[in-house]
Amino acid sequence: MRNRLISVLSCLAACAAGQTFQRLGGCPDLGCVFPPDQVDFLAGQYFDIRLEVHSPVNGSEARVGEPDPNFTFTITKKGGSPIAAADFFQVDEPKLERWNFTWYEDLFAKDLEKPSLVNVTAKAYRRVALYEPGEYEATLTYYGSQKTVANWLVRDLPTKRRAKNVLLFIGDGMTTNMITAARLMAHRSINGKYMTKMALDKFPVLGHQMTHSMDSFITDSANSATALYTGHKTTVNALNVYVDSSKDPFDDPKFEIITEIFRRRFPLSGVGIVTTAFLADATPAGLTAHTSKRSKFDHVIDAFYEGGVSTHNWTGWDGPDVVLGTGAENFLKTKDAPHDYYPLFTEKGYSLAWNNTAMQNAPTDEKLLGVFQTDNLAVWLDRNVYKDNLLNQSNYPDGSARDAVDLPGLKEMTLKAIDVLQERHDDEGWFLMSEAASIDKQMHSLDYDRALGELLELDDTVRATIEKLESLGQLEDTLILVTADHGHGFDVTGSVDTKYLNAQHDDREKRRAVGYYRESGLSQYTVGGPNSLQYSDGVHFPARWDPRYALHSGVGAFPDHRENYQVHSDGPRSPAAGINGQKNDYYANYKDAVTGFLVNGTLPVDASQGVHSLTDVPVFAQGPCQELFGGVYNSIDIFFGMAECLGLSETKAPSGASGSSGACAAGQVKDKDGQ
Amino acid sequence: MRNRLISVLSCLAACAAGQTFQRLGGCPDLGCVFPPDQVDFLAGQYFDIRLEVHSPVNGSEARVGEPDPNFTFTITKKGGSPIAAADFFQVDEPKLERWNFTWYEDLFAKDLEKPSLVNVTAKAYRRVALYEPGEYEATLTYYGSQKTVANWLVRDLPTKRRAKNVLLFIGDGMTTNMITAARLMAHRSINGKYMTKMALDKFPVLGHQMTHSMDSFITDSANSATALYTGHKTTVNALNVYVDSSKDPFDDPKFEIITEIFRRRFPLSGVGIVTTAFLADATPAGLTAHTSKRSKFDHVIDAFYEGGVSTHNWTGWDGPDVVLGTGAENFLKTKDAPHDYYPLFTEKGYSLAWNNTAMQNAPTDEKLLGVFQTDNLAVWLDRNVYKDNLLNQSNYPDGSARDAVDLPGLKEMTLKAIDVLQERHDDEGWFLMSEAASIDKQMHSLDYDRALGELLELDDTVRATIEKLESLGQLEDTLILVTADHGHGFDVTGSVDTKYLNAQHDDREKRRAVGYYRESGLSQYTVGGPNSLQYSDGVHFPARWDPRYALHSGVGAFPDHRENYQVHSDGPRSPAAGINGQKNDYYANYKDAVTGFLVNGTLPVDASQGVHSLTDVPVFAQGPCQELFGGVYNSIDIFFGMAECLGLSETKAPSGASGSSGACAAGQVKDKDGQ
Repeated sequence: MRNRLISVLSCLAACAAGQTFQRLGGCPDLGCVFPPDQVDFLAGQYFDIRLEVHSPVNGSEARVGEPDPNFTFTITKKGGSPIAAADFFQVDEPKLERWNFTWYEDLFAKDLEKPSLVNVTAKAYRRVALYEPGEYEATLTYYGSQKTVANWLVRDLPTKRRAKNVLLFIGDGMTTNMITAARLMAHRSINGKYMTKMALDKFPVLGHQMTHSMDSFITDSANSATALYTGHKTTVNALNVYVDSSKDPFDDPKFEIITEIFRRRFPLSGVGIVTTAFLADATPAGLTAHTSKRSKFDHVIDAFYEGGVSTHNWTGWDGPDVVLGTGAENFLKTKDAPHDYYPLFTEKGYSLAWNNTAMQNAPTDEKLLGVFQTDNLAVWLDRNVYKDNLLNQSNYPDGSARDAVDLPGLKEMTLKAIDVLQERHDDEGWFLMSEAASIDKQMHSLDYDRALGELLELDDTVRATIEKLESLGQLEDTLILVTADHGHGFDVTGSVDTKYLNAQHDDREKRRAVGYYRESGLSQYTVGGPNSLQYSDGVHFPARWDPRYALHSGVGAFPDHRENYQVHSDGPRSPAAGINGQKNDYYANYKDAVTGFLVNGTLPVDASQGVHSLTDVPVFAQGPCQELFGGVYNSIDIFFGMAECLGLSETKAPSGASGSSGACAAGQVKDKDGQ
Repeated sequence: MRNRLISVLSCLAACAAGQTFQRLGGCPDLGCVFPPDQVDFLAGQYFDIRLEVHSPVNGSEARVGEPDPNFTFTITKKGGSPIAAADFFQVDEPKLERWNFTWYEDLFAKDLEKPSLVNVTAKAYRRVALYEPGEYEATLTYYGSQKTVANWLVRDLPTKRRAKNVLLFIGDGMTTNMITAARLMAHRSINGKYMTKMALDKFPVLGHQMTHSMDSFITDSANSATALYTGHKTTVNALNVYVDSSKDPFDDPKFEIITEIFRRRFPLSGVGIVTTAFLADATPAGLTAHTSKRSKFDHVIDAFYEGGVSTHNWTGWDGPDVVLGTGAENFLKTKDAPHDYYPLFTEKGYSLAWNNTAMQNAPTDEKLLGVFQTDNLAVWLDRNVYKDNLLNQSNYPDGSARDAVDLPGLKEMTLKAIDVLQERHDDEGWFLMSEAASIDKQMHSLDYDRALGELLELDDTVRATIEKLESLGQLEDTLILVTADHGHGFDVTGSVDTKYLNAQHDDREKRRAVGYYRESGLSQYTVGGPNSLQYSDGVHFPARWDPRYALHSGVGAFPDHRENYQVHSDGPRSPAAGINGQKNDYYANYKDAVTGFLVNGTLPVDASQGVHSLTDVPVFAQGPCQELFGGVYNSIDIFFGMAECLGLSETKAPSGASGSSGACAAGQVKDKDGQ
């Protein structure tokens, strides 16, 4: 009986971390330290510390009494003695905070609407840094002798800068499986030998990165962008903070982003952001914003504009040189966006482009904001093949009811961004992130044609970028990475005789149209014909998108939907719909694939789309430091590799920041309305 | 109108190649040359040539008249003049053959039972070789002036041997996605940092190989084994031959296997074959057999025993030193196996092991045949966790009704094979292939737990093998590759609260149990407890296979089935079943997942299992020549890399074989009953 008790007790904490719901991600017991156990830091990287002590009022962890207001917190450099954190970092002891929150222990509790209530005491140490490489032990002591220990590692990286520029391409949601499928659609092969190569296939170094997050093994794009840009994994929906249990989405403990470090260390360097998503979306937002809620779009645009966070004393950089994307709704004054941001940007010296022509004509010696439509950028397939889908959208970025039809693609935006960055920052170099966002967005809606079109556009962009950098004499000085932030469980399993499928009337008969193994045959997307699409030399997209023998593709988890395996020439797919518009009970959308057959879902019925998956994603590297990116590693290693290559590791406290034991409050910058 | 006609005509050949059905894979028009256009050869690699001229009697390609009996065939070395093939290779002109065959042009024709009939004239040039690197043009001229041209490339590879041994691990069907999932199940992580590493994750070099076949983009394991072992892609179900249109499964044009070349060039070298599949299965069979039908199991066992093909004069090697696996039914005298093979092997000097104890005790200085049960080897999960599933199988390899319970795993077999090879071939080195076959087999039946258990066993085998090679002083001389032959479209998308799922009664309610993104939580497979499984230091498998929060996994294409996401403790899954045992109309097997919910299939209803997928698969490399295996390449490059590393490129004709222009009939070996 006693043994059983012990095993049940020992399970509590560990099991809580594995559950569908968690009290607080990253918190191992009733004491919480953020940054949590096992995190790594770049030497000199700014970060905040958040401590919490929990007192659950009810539920399986219930205890009697208030949360401890007298907890203590020490830092121990390996081989040294524990030092109170305020002394260690030479900062004032922060004031005690109190709040409470509720959570559900499992789905049964949720069904019964029986939340667990937790009372909290907390403190936050703001903007500190560890400079001396090595191991540190951060110990929270509470309720007398209970301890939560976080082991921290400051990585010992070379400090010599090796790359002038870093260009990080992110194919959002892109997996190896999708690259394989895109190659099949766009590159002709004869008897198993491809006649042309993808740009990605020519990279000298290949790696895999693990995308799992701190407290869930499936990540979202905010969480994973954070890992790539900062070296810290966090929680779904969080951007460059650990998520504490308070309600405020802006008080969570921050850590410094590569853009912030780069500009702080090299004030004359440049930063560019290019995306096919709406600009407030997670992957672009991750380069400037700090919040536990990625949906705080006004904050994100603020962060572009003000160059960082305004709510706390932080690094004070003045924002990126180039911001190109869409999502005009977040720049126009609305209930979600308190400002009309366009004039604010132009006042600050940005030239403004609302269409491709204006962007192409924009001066390269000025900062540049390009916002080309509302919502996400129309995808390559609609911009280039099914152009009628651009009409009647009322999506011109000035908020008028016009259609945005003069649109740049990822390639045009990326090449323009390079022109600006190179013109303005040839001395100290630049960092550019370019995101093919709708690989992910179209995978979500099971629109594989559109998703793979976006992937091919990314590949074409990489190809054109390499040519451009070569012509600028920058190729040898530029580390180029192409990777993803997470996957979708997509793969191709055969071909479908769409003529046969469309001619059958029974769902089971329709499935006979699928040919697998030998009967998959060869790709017909590359077969020319009278109406086949033509491209310039070296540019590879399908010659046709609607061959009779189409790809048989699928993902591993999906909502109810119908499949006919045919390109949706009338616009992006909408596979599931709520009856009478209901938002959490989705059924297959009949109109989405009238000639198809029904596939019932494997996701909760409140999911109208596919979801992200676990798979490691590929990393393609070339340029200085390319050897750091081979083999298999954690997503955070992308950050550390880029930071090492840019010489951002700062292993000694700068003169502006006093400190002991290789740690200190980070150097003061211009004061904002910081805490 | 004329334009339209041209476009239709130009589509005929090209479209035929993309169809669900093809007249003859690799044949671009009415004249067929094998090896076909765009193939590569290792210098000095033996191969056969097959020529065919087709005269379709009916169907869309119908023509009047017999197939051309007077076709001609020339070889042109680049920069030279065409030379009649018999002169070029200094062989006799082969005799003309004639046959006919039928095929269906599409599913409509099949439904109507309207096959197309094709009359054929053909010739075969046997056992020739090209020694001089460079480009060759092989031209078939028929029907007067029609030409089919095959461009051949003999690769110009260094001839210096760099590795003493090559160890090729094949995770059959293994993808990056599966490795990610296996890692999550067996390795503990804290706040996103794994505390231990998989052996695969430690490899210094990572590559991706494309697995598509010559005439279909989805391969089977025969076709893909052929590519890996010979550098030639072929057709589904074919082993080390191109598939001609004749009915004879043994007259197809062969090409030489790496084992045959290695033993021909280094007669004192050794070859080992280890698999968890039945030994006549494609991946082991591919190291010795030549046939267009992998199901010719008697031929495969013959090939192990006789060391190659008996039907044609070929290389005459005497077979592998070590053969370890299962599939005893093919060794016992039955209607499919004409011989009792066990005494034939022992007469030839093999010691014979029918269980793990006997294998462990077998002398290392003798050749070794181990056959441990009928069918495929019981999987790791059943051998180590759910051991009751080994009982009542009547599968002892001697054909008695006993149960095989004293079974080795992949690790035990591989380490024993190394002992034998090292003892017998320390001078000239060895080639060992070790296959984790049931990753694929269990993926087919959607039994992800069992598949990932096999993957973890492979990883543990790799780890133990590296230790073993180090202790033998062989590690630095051994090129180790771990790769796959194709994928399955598997991925993990979240977690499932199995307690909640089991408690619901409606299919849509059950789906609420799925937690995705943040609610995926963390792996509970690694959480210890009173009944958790314990392993030796450095060995990593799940601590439990039945956590309440299980993985939410799936594949992209599937038969009708039910899902409850719970380990099948009573034995491998059987997701679909025919009503009354019917074989081509499968429905979900209710008994397979009683508490689960129904998922209707996306594959033809004659499929009872999942199918292979398109995705590029990973290659992990370490040892001499490891740098040849980074980046993205074709599956055939694995062969060329291994061959280069073993110094197998033979750029000058040996004295035994006369020849001109760097080509000749391959040197005579002991005559068998060759053509």
